[in-house]
Amino acid sequence: MPELTETDLHELGYLLPARPGMAEAEVQTPCLIVDLDAFDRNLIRMRDFCRSIGIALRPHAKTHKCPEIARHQIGHGAVGICCQKLSEAEHFARAGIPDILLSNEIRDPVKIDRLARLPGLGTRITCCIDDIDNVAELSAAVTRHGTTLDCLVEIDCGAGRCGVTTPAEAVAIARAIAVAPGLSFRGIQAYQGSLQHIYDYASRAAQAERSIAIARETVAALAAAGLECATVTGAGTGSFPFEAASGVYTELQCGSYIFMDADYGKVLDAAGDRLDAGGFENALFLLTSVMSHAKPGKAVCDAGLKAQSVDSGLPVVFGRSDVTYTACSDEHGEIADPDDALKINDRLRLVPGHCDPTCNLHDWFVGIRDGRVATLWRITARGPGL
Amino acid sequence: MPELTETDLHELGYLLPARPGMAEAEVQTPCLIVDLDAFDRNLIRMRDFCRSIGIALRPHAKTHKCPEIARHQIGHGAVGICCQKLSEAEHFARAGIPDILLSNEIRDPVKIDRLARLPGLGTRITCCIDDIDNVAELSAAVTRHGTTLDCLVEIDCGAGRCGVTTPAEAVAIARAIAVAPGLSFRGIQAYQGSLQHIYDYASRAAQAERSIAIARETVAALAAAGLECATVTGAGTGSFPFEAASGVYTELQCGSYIFMDADYGKVLDAAGDRLDAGGFENALFLLTSVMSHAKPGKAVCDAGLKAQSVDSGLPVVFGRSDVTYTACSDEHGEIADPDDALKINDRLRLVPGHCDPTCNLHDWFVGIRDGRVATLWRITARGPGL
Repeated sequence: MPELTETDLHELGYLLPARPGMAEAEVQTPCLIVDLDAFDRNLIRMRDFCRSIGIALRPHAKTHKCPEIARHQIGHGAVGICCQKLSEAEHFARAGIPDILLSNEIRDPVKIDRLARLPGLGTRITCCIDDIDNVAELSAAVTRHGTTLDCLVEIDCGAGRCGVTTPAEAVAIARAIAVAPGLSFRGIQAYQGSLQHIYDYASRAAQAERSIAIARETVAALAAAGLECATVTGAGTGSFPFEAASGVYTELQCGSYIFMDADYGKVLDAAGDRLDAGGFENALFLLTSVMSHAKPGKAVCDAGLKAQSVDSGLPVVFGRSDVTYTACSDEHGEIADPDDALKINDRLRLVPGHCDPTCNLHDWFVGIRDGRVATLWRITARGPGL
Repeated sequence: MPELTETDLHELGYLLPARPGMAEAEVQTPCLIVDLDAFDRNLIRMRDFCRSIGIALRPHAKTHKCPEIARHQIGHGAVGICCQKLSEAEHFARAGIPDILLSNEIRDPVKIDRLARLPGLGTRITCCIDDIDNVAELSAAVTRHGTTLDCLVEIDCGAGRCGVTTPAEAVAIARAIAVAPGLSFRGIQAYQGSLQHIYDYASRAAQAERSIAIARETVAALAAAGLECATVTGAGTGSFPFEAASGVYTELQCGSYIFMDADYGKVLDAAGDRLDAGGFENALFLLTSVMSHAKPGKAVCDAGLKAQSVDSGLPVVFGRSDVTYTACSDEHGEIADPDDALKINDRLRLVPGHCDPTCNLHDWFVGIRDGRVATLWRITARGPGL
C-alpha cells in the first residue's frame, strides 16, 4: 500500500475520527468503536471452544473487512479467513493473509481471471462451485495463469440460496473438479445463513439438525464415489455449537462472534439465556452524539441510516434503560428521553442492529481501552464488493 | 486533491468498476450506473419548474455526495447545494462549490471549530440553529477565525425531529443571531421529511398545508419582530409543488429528483399517476449479475445489503415483469425467476428502494450513454458523516 499522509487520507474522504491517545469523549461521531477488552475475550472464547472440540476456525471476514482484525483472529488460532467477495479476498491477500476461502461462486469472466491470478500473491485460495460449467471456466483460467485453486462444492443445506440440492449433483461436480487441471477437490461448503437468527433454541436446533443431515448425506455420497471431503465448512455465530458437535463439520466460519449485535442479542441459548449474556460480548458500538433536543421527551442524535444498517432492526442504547433509539432517518436518530436526561453533546454507545452491513458503512474502527483510543484500524475491504 | 494513480486508488479500496468507453455489459458488478440521458432530463425538468414559478433551487447533495453532480445541478440553475453533515460540506467546499447550506445543527465543539473555518475556503456557508445556546457558540468560533456565517432558525413543521416548535422560540433565536458578531440572520429552515413519502396525494397535500401554515406563521411572527426572512427553505421531491405554490417558501431543497427510487415510484400525483410516470425518471440503477442458478425458479444475484439500503423496501427490477427481487442477504439477492429466463452472468438493472443511503455505500457512479460508459464520478463525500 502506498504511504499516504494524513492529508492525503483526509482528501480522499478518509476523515480520521480519532487519534491514538485521545479520550473516548473526544472521538468524533458518528463512528464505530471497538471495546478491545471485550474483543479480546471474544477471540479467546472462540479459540478455546474450537480447541476443546478439535475443530478448525476460519472466521468470516465479511463481518469486519479489516486485515488487522483478521490477523488478530489468526493469532488466536484461526487457520485462515473466509471472504464473500472477490474484492475482499484481493484486499486480504494483499495484506498478507495466507489462507482464504472465498465462500461464494465466481462466474463473471473478468472476475474469474482476477481469481485465477490471486494465488500468485502467495495466498492459498479456495473457492466454491455450484454449477458444473464453472469447473471448466476456473480450470482454464488457472491454467492460463499457472496457478492452482482448491475447490469446494457448495450445497444448499436449507437456506435456499446458492448451492446444489442433491448429493448426485455434488458428486458430479466433485468428479469434474477432481480431474480438472489446476483444481483440487477439497470438500463441501455447507452454510445455512437463515438458521443463525432463529431466536428460539429448540427451533434453531431442529433446523440445524436438518442442515447437518444434508451435509452428512452429501459427504457419504461423495465418499461412496471415492471423493473424500477433507473439509466440511460452514456454521455461524448462531449455530456453531450444533455443527461443532456434529462429527461431520471440520471447520467453523463464525464471523459475528467478535462483535455481536442487537439481533444476536435476541438469539437464545439452550438455557433460555441471551447468546450475549455470559458468552460472546458486545464489542462493537456505534458512538453517537446528541445534536438537538428542541422539545421535551425527545433527543436527536447524529447516527442515522448512513452510519448503520437497520435491515435487522434498530440499534439498542448500551448500558442505559432510561433512553431508547426509536426511529431512524438518513442522518439522524430519534431518542425517546422521557426524563429529559440527555444534554447536547452527550454521547451514547449504540449496539448496531446488524454488525456486518454496519461495518461496511465505515472506514475506521476506533479501538478503545481504559477509556482511551488505543488504535485505529482501517476497514480496507469495505464497499459493495466488486 | 492529490493526484493519485489508478494503482493508488485500487490499493486504497477504490476498485474501479468500469473505464470510459466500455460497453455497459463489461461494467463490473455490483455497481451504480447513471442513465445520463434520464439524468439530464431530470435536471432540465426541475430547472424549468423552478424558473416557471420563480423560486430558487438548492438541491440536497446528501442524495449523491458527488461534486460532479453538484456542478451539473448548478449548471442547471441551482443557487448552491444543501449538505446534511459537516464532512459533506467540507468535501463540497474543497471541490469549489461556492454556496452551501448545512441544513443541520452543529453542536460538537470540534465540529463548530471546523465549521467556522469553512468560509475561509471562499464558500458562502449557511447553517441551522434550533437552540439559543448554539448562537453564542457559533459566534465565538467565527470571531476566533475571522469568518462569518449566515444562519437560519430551524423550525419543526411536522417531522418531529430537530427544530423549534413555537414562533416565540424562533423569534428569540433570530434576535440573538441578529446581534451576534459574525452571524447574520437570513430566515428559516422548514423541511418536513416525513411528508415526502406519503403515497396518497390527498393525505400528502393535507399534511403539506399544515407544514406550510407553520412556516407562514413563523415568518409572520419574525416579521412582526422586525426580522425579515430573506430565505424560507425546505421541500423535497415528494412535496415541492406544494411549497413552491405556497408563496411562503423562497427555495426548494429537493434531492432525489435527479435519480428517483423504488419508494418514490409509489408516491402518487394529483392525477393518481406515479411520480416517476411522465415526470422525473429513474436515472440511478444498481447493476447486478446473476451468479448462481442452482435450482429452478430462483436465480441469485451479486447485490445484497452491502450494495443497497433496504430501509424503504426491496429494489425493483427495471424493465422486466418476468423476474422479481424477493429477498436480500448481506452479499446476495434472490430473484424469483418462474420461467427460468435468467442465465448465469445475465445483468439486471435494479431500481434501489431508497437512493440516498444506497449511493452512500458506493465509491463511484458509472455514467452510461448509448450503452457505453461515458464517465466515472467519484462519490467523494460518502461515509457516516463525521
